[in-house]
Amino acid sequence: MKRKIKMGMVGGGKDAFIGNVHRMAARLDGCIDLVCGAFSSNPKKSKASGKALFLPENRVYTSYYEMFQQEAELPEEERMDFVSIVTPNHLHFEPAKLALESGFHVMCDKPVTFNIEEAKELKKIINKKKLLFALTHNYTGYPMVKEAKAMVKLGRLGTIRRCIVEYPQGWLATRLEVTGQKQADWRTDPNKSGKAGAMGDIGTHAENLLEYITGLQITHVCADLNTFVKGRQLDDDGAILLKLQNGAKATLLATQIAAGEENNLRIRVYGEKGGLDWSHENPNTLLYRTLNKPLQMLRTGVGKQAQTTQAAIRIPAGHPEGFLEAFANIYKNFAVTLSQQLEGKRLKPLNLDFPTIDDGIRGMQFIDRVVESAASNKKWTKF
Amino acid sequence: MKRKIKMGMVGGGKDAFIGNVHRMAARLDGCIDLVCGAFSSNPKKSKASGKALFLPENRVYTSYYEMFQQEAELPEEERMDFVSIVTPNHLHFEPAKLALESGFHVMCDKPVTFNIEEAKELKKIINKKKLLFALTHNYTGYPMVKEAKAMVKLGRLGTIRRCIVEYPQGWLATRLEVTGQKQADWRTDPNKSGKAGAMGDIGTHAENLLEYITGLQITHVCADLNTFVKGRQLDDDGAILLKLQNGAKATLLATQIAAGEENNLRIRVYGEKGGLDWSHENPNTLLYRTLNKPLQMLRTGVGKQAQTTQAAIRIPAGHPEGFLEAFANIYKNFAVTLSQQLEGKRLKPLNLDFPTIDDGIRGMQFIDRVVESAASNKKWTKF
Amino acid sequence: MKRKIKMGMVGGGKDAFIGNVHRMAARLDGCIDLVCGAFSSNPKKSKASGKALFLPENRVYTSYYEMFQQEAELPEEERMDFVSIVTPNHLHFEPAKLALESGFHVMCDKPVTFNIEEAKELKKIINKKKLLFALTHNYTGYPMVKEAKAMVKLGRLGTIRRCIVEYPQGWLATRLEVTGQKQADWRTDPNKSGKAGAMGDIGTHAENLLEYITGLQITHVCADLNTFVKGRQLDDDGAILLKLQNGAKATLLATQIAAGEENNLRIRVYGEKGGLDWSHENPNTLLYRTLNKPLQMLRTGVGKQAQTTQAAIRIPAGHPEGFLEAFANIYKNFAVTLSQQLEGKRLKPLNLDFPTIDDGIRGMQFIDRVVESAASNKKWTKF
Amino acid sequence: MKRKIKMGMVGGGKDAFIGNVHRMAARLDGCIDLVCGAFSSNPKKSKASGKALFLPENRVYTSYYEMFQQEAELPEEERMDFVSIVTPNHLHFEPAKLALESGFHVMCDKPVTFNIEEAKELKKIINKKKLLFALTHNYTGYPMVKEAKAMVKLGRLGTIRRCIVEYPQGWLATRLEVTGQKQADWRTDPNKSGKAGAMGDIGTHAENLLEYITGLQITHVCADLNTFVKGRQLDDDGAILLKLQNGAKATLLATQIAAGEENNLRIRVYGEKGGLDWSHENPNTLLYRTLNKPLQMLRTGVGKQAQTTQAAIRIPAGHPEGFLEAFANIYKNFAVTLSQQLEGKRLKPLNLDFPTIDDGIRGMQFIDRVVESAASNKKWTKF
Repeated sequence: MKRKIKMGMVGGGKDAFIGNVHRMAARLDGCIDLVCGAFSSNPKKSKASGKALFLPENRVYTSYYEMFQQEAELPEEERMDFVSIVTPNHLHFEPAKLALESGFHVMCDKPVTFNIEEAKELKKIINKKKLLFALTHNYTGYPMVKEAKAMVKLGRLGTIRRCIVEYPQGWLATRLEVTGQKQADWRTDPNKSGKAGAMGDIGTHAENLLEYITGLQITHVCADLNTFVKGRQLDDDGAILLKLQNGAKATLLATQIAAGEENNLRIRVYGEKGGLDWSHENPNTLLYRTLNKPLQMLRTGVGKQAQTTQAAIRIPAGHPEGFLEAFANIYKNFAVTLSQQLEGKRLKPLNLDFPTIDDGIRGMQFIDRVVESAASNKKWTKF
Repeated sequence: MKRKIKMGMVGGGKDAFIGNVHRMAARLDGCIDLVCGAFSSNPKKSKASGKALFLPENRVYTSYYEMFQQEAELPEEERMDFVSIVTPNHLHFEPAKLALESGFHVMCDKPVTFNIEEAKELKKIINKKKLLFALTHNYTGYPMVKEAKAMVKLGRLGTIRRCIVEYPQGWLATRLEVTGQKQADWRTDPNKSGKAGAMGDIGTHAENLLEYITGLQITHVCADLNTFVKGRQLDDDGAILLKLQNGAKATLLATQIAAGEENNLRIRVYGEKGGLDWSHENPNTLLYRTLNKPLQMLRTGVGKQAQTTQAAIRIPAGHPEGFLEAFANIYKNFAVTLSQQLEGKRLKPLNLDFPTIDDGIRGMQFIDRVVESAASNKKWTKF
Repeated sequence: MKRKIKMGMVGGGKDAFIGNVHRMAARLDGCIDLVCGAFSSNPKKSKASGKALFLPENRVYTSYYEMFQQEAELPEEERMDFVSIVTPNHLHFEPAKLALESGFHVMCDKPVTFNIEEAKELKKIINKKKLLFALTHNYTGYPMVKEAKAMVKLGRLGTIRRCIVEYPQGWLATRLEVTGQKQADWRTDPNKSGKAGAMGDIGTHAENLLEYITGLQITHVCADLNTFVKGRQLDDDGAILLKLQNGAKATLLATQIAAGEENNLRIRVYGEKGGLDWSHENPNTLLYRTLNKPLQMLRTGVGKQAQTTQAAIRIPAGHPEGFLEAFANIYKNFAVTLSQQLEGKRLKPLNLDFPTIDDGIRGMQFIDRVVESAASNKKWTKF
Repeated sequence: MKRKIKMGMVGGGKDAFIGNVHRMAARLDGCIDLVCGAFSSNPKKSKASGKALFLPENRVYTSYYEMFQQEAELPEEERMDFVSIVTPNHLHFEPAKLALESGFHVMCDKPVTFNIEEAKELKKIINKKKLLFALTHNYTGYPMVKEAKAMVKLGRLGTIRRCIVEYPQGWLATRLEVTGQKQADWRTDPNKSGKAGAMGDIGTHAENLLEYITGLQITHVCADLNTFVKGRQLDDDGAILLKLQNGAKATLLATQIAAGEENNLRIRVYGEKGGLDWSHENPNTLLYRTLNKPLQMLRTGVGKQAQTTQAAIRIPAGHPEGFLEAFANIYKNFAVTLSQQLEGKRLKPLNLDFPTIDDGIRGMQFIDRVVESAASNKKWTKF
């Protein structure tokens, strides 16, 4: 990279949890600078957030359209290269669309939009403008997740047969949304979150991880969605039977009412010759089972690992890397790719993947099909 | 107990895995004596097995009907009190029926019979003859499983919402049944195993454990059964969505093609106030999650535990108890109960439960409904 | 085996914890019958214990000398073959000596005697009488401990360099001995336990396990013994630096005041080429580390294992075996060996090892040297 | 903070592992900017490193004395506030001394100097100049380590009795230093590392962690140091018995030849009322044992925790934080403290601790006493 990549941000004001996560992830590798932001629709809040982030006053905007307009007028060596959109779901589409139309690359929180039509429209603009668009399905940034994907691709498991992916959380086991908790408020509100609650928020992470590791697309779903907490409007729990390409089968569980659970994403993939088991609570370990041989604990950075895995590791084996490092891998891979594009290089295989608008569209389809299936008496709904 | 309980055995010849498990379980507490057996339909094998077990020649029979007839003629202080039936599924009903009709109490391996009609007929005879009948759903014998049941009953979790029960094995990941392996042979044969393969063998254990711990009955199933190994006649994998009484939901997975898995039964139960997590690979630990408090690792024998739990523990905390001890709890509880009945005592609450013909009938219904659901396009099949 | 082996017992009356452990261990495999006992020095207690064990009245004795005398007069097909001695430490020597002199083989709880002189005297008698003597260092009965020993012997670790063995318990963190708790009472009493407290009780287990797995003898110790609970007379905690044959080094920790610990024996052995890690809390797993390769989790019964390991396994992989099964392996191996001797067979390699008087003598030397070292200002005390 | 803190760096050229760790740690929270550096004694390397870090050419220096001199002449709003020294041990003292004398605050890698005299001299200068000096004993930056310290302070364990701290690594199990591996080269060289090898590198981390959590100082050591790999000049393994203030006892193990181990630092602390267990391989979990109650798994961010702990957490519970986040806590706490000092505020309790020159001096004393003890026939060496 010849220079740092310059980032703007939409949303992520001082109290927002995810805005700070994006900023820490963007900072970690020293190749991205936050140069401007429209951190809140409340101008005072936006200004205060910008100040706390040590940004110059004139780069802190009161709205994203103001930001895109004014940044576009700055000379190239000053203006932002891409914008990171970290608002709630219903506020992804408009800024993303405008950013793209203003010529800015985009990093966007997930799920990509409020509904699938918006996602498809974004894809059209992206293709037309030839801009980069990344989606923060951050779990794919973990080294051992990349190793799992590489192992499946290399045929270590043989043909995949049975997958189990689950994402239990417990933070919505009570009606937290009536207490003023901001996260709970918008995530349980159909006007902000979209058609689905738990399935949209964490179910899409599980779906994305499943397709990422196995390389197989979901073809059918049989879904059961539940709202266990009285008065809540969206699902807070759901279980799904899935058919994958090639005849493999899977179950997917996403629940936010599993009392006492933290953030316990786990995926198991079994093929003819072996099985893999990755758990977010212990993300530097990947269990590898084979027929009639001892279970192996693959560990971040130990032994020979795929190039994609190695590229996602920052420190020697035995030094735990966590959530922020995985998140930072999305940013780093995006920044390096963007850098190559900005330098006019022909993009070559980089071992630096990141989720794109296509992952976003799959996620929105997933939500649609799951909600449809949950309302149906028919067993299987085609994806 | 005034005297030891005397046991006969049908099946369980020298090479049978499960016969020896039953015998070790029966021996452990010193309150049951194996006094006779018809260990094989092959008279030579039966005799050899009896000899290896140090039984007198005249108590080793060539058939179970011979055994029941001759034992019935012995004086009470000599003849067997109950018979343990450890043959493959299709050979449970006839000996069980004849034993009961001959006045013998029965311990029977699971699933109870080849089909549900047989199970219901056994129940009629049991009721008529007022004899004891136990079924070796052995996982309910673990102390921490009993503690889980007791905690649910005490309301520690509040109303149950979401359950996850799974039983992955990997031993049938290849077509083992064509290699002469005896277990694989009969368990994959519909003429010996019944309508279901994995679901009958281990799915019923999962179903029984779920109902045992939660105290809730399954009301609906939505099943997907698979046969992944080519040429195999019965399911070797299946996933089910379930509705329970009270509106709780569950998923149940039973698979024998999860390459590299041993015998990894696990159940998680989440209610309004907390969650429990028990895993067969670490059976002396029960994880107890609550809202906003640290996770607790409950351990066999540590701290205050239910009387039913205490009655299932043999040694002080920190001395791992395993599969045989849990199995032995079924035998011990059966023997103590039988002893009370034989001594003419009115049966009082003993903290000594064991699975009965009712569990057997639930299991056969489960198999029927699951197979029916798997063949149906309808989402939910009533139990 | 042509017939069952007949066992008598000294000690182990109804309330004793360890007596029942021995009996369950002896029963498990069906090759040993308890035929007589002197369960308590209190005749009433002994009688009551015998009755609870369903023994005929004439085989329940009021003293061990009465038992040895009367049993010796019974015809061979009736009289006990060996006696199991399960009394506190200070009451091992006299009955063991008399049993041997009366021609009975002996199974004895550990540590073998009250002091080393007694242990050496027993060895002389054993040698003279050509009788079998086994010591219940039961942790060596675990399959994965046997696998560890076999792997070291096969050179999988190369030359051993560093060992860590530790046995933390917490049950004596308070002054339990003044509450009437029987176990605490005699184990903290120098007149019953011997020179050492924690070191004698569990330190000898750690020492035995270390020498068993590595095949290396301790040559020097540098010990620090502590009595943390006020008023207690013996050590309740100690840490030791050790030199082993061949230049390897080890640390040994034995403590009974590690608040909250159950029975957490663990051993790690590192050689030039790899390392092994076995923990009693998870006894069916043996972690195997090598240079630059993924850690392997060896599991009871999975994959190819040593013959000695296989001989110690009763049930298929994935069915947890625990403390009683390991204990029972000492009894089974002793019984099979004894059977061969009784049948006049020349003893051939059996893959059926058990601890002997030599282990007992090593243990008593260990206690002596550790106590001597703890009192010394010199760094190293020769073993 | 009113502005970002400006950092310079000595050492940490492109290939150095630890330099990049320091930079990532410094970046994470967005309150520190790297503004200059003397990254290598080789001017070309220094320049290339500076360029890769996007620094302006005129802020990349060819030596640290040049850097201190020129930076000192820059206006306050431009010049660095502190320097981070990330060279090998023998190159800490000179730049640290000169930086302090030039008026710059210092962050220094550990162990603080080559010998204790240097460390004491630094302390004098620090006191005279009233500058901040931080030492990267980074393990004290983990939230659960801070929670452990807070719990001990609150008396949750009662009086401390027994501690066990161990740091096994396996990377020096072979003679890596002759292969050209840079880390192995200087760390095994007494002219660069100092008197001790493994004890200096990782033993001091263990020592620091022990004193940090318990709040107790080591008073005596009884050390056994070993060099297992032939031809190596410094210890690659060592075990120590320790006495702490108040009569507590500890063992400390530091080894770099534990084949297959990664970076497995672990500490256990047992007091009268409970025990704590923290392991670097699972750093977001702190096991808390108490008398006769279930073990609790305390987890980063779950439930009520100390203010010092909370201040060290960046993301909600269940999102693993790792090595870099802990390291970044040293930088963040240093930067916030420095910011207060720069703004002329009176320093108030900040819940933002970091290791200082006093920790550095303790570490050098530890090395001295351990090496002295290892050479002595006397059991205890006073600290």
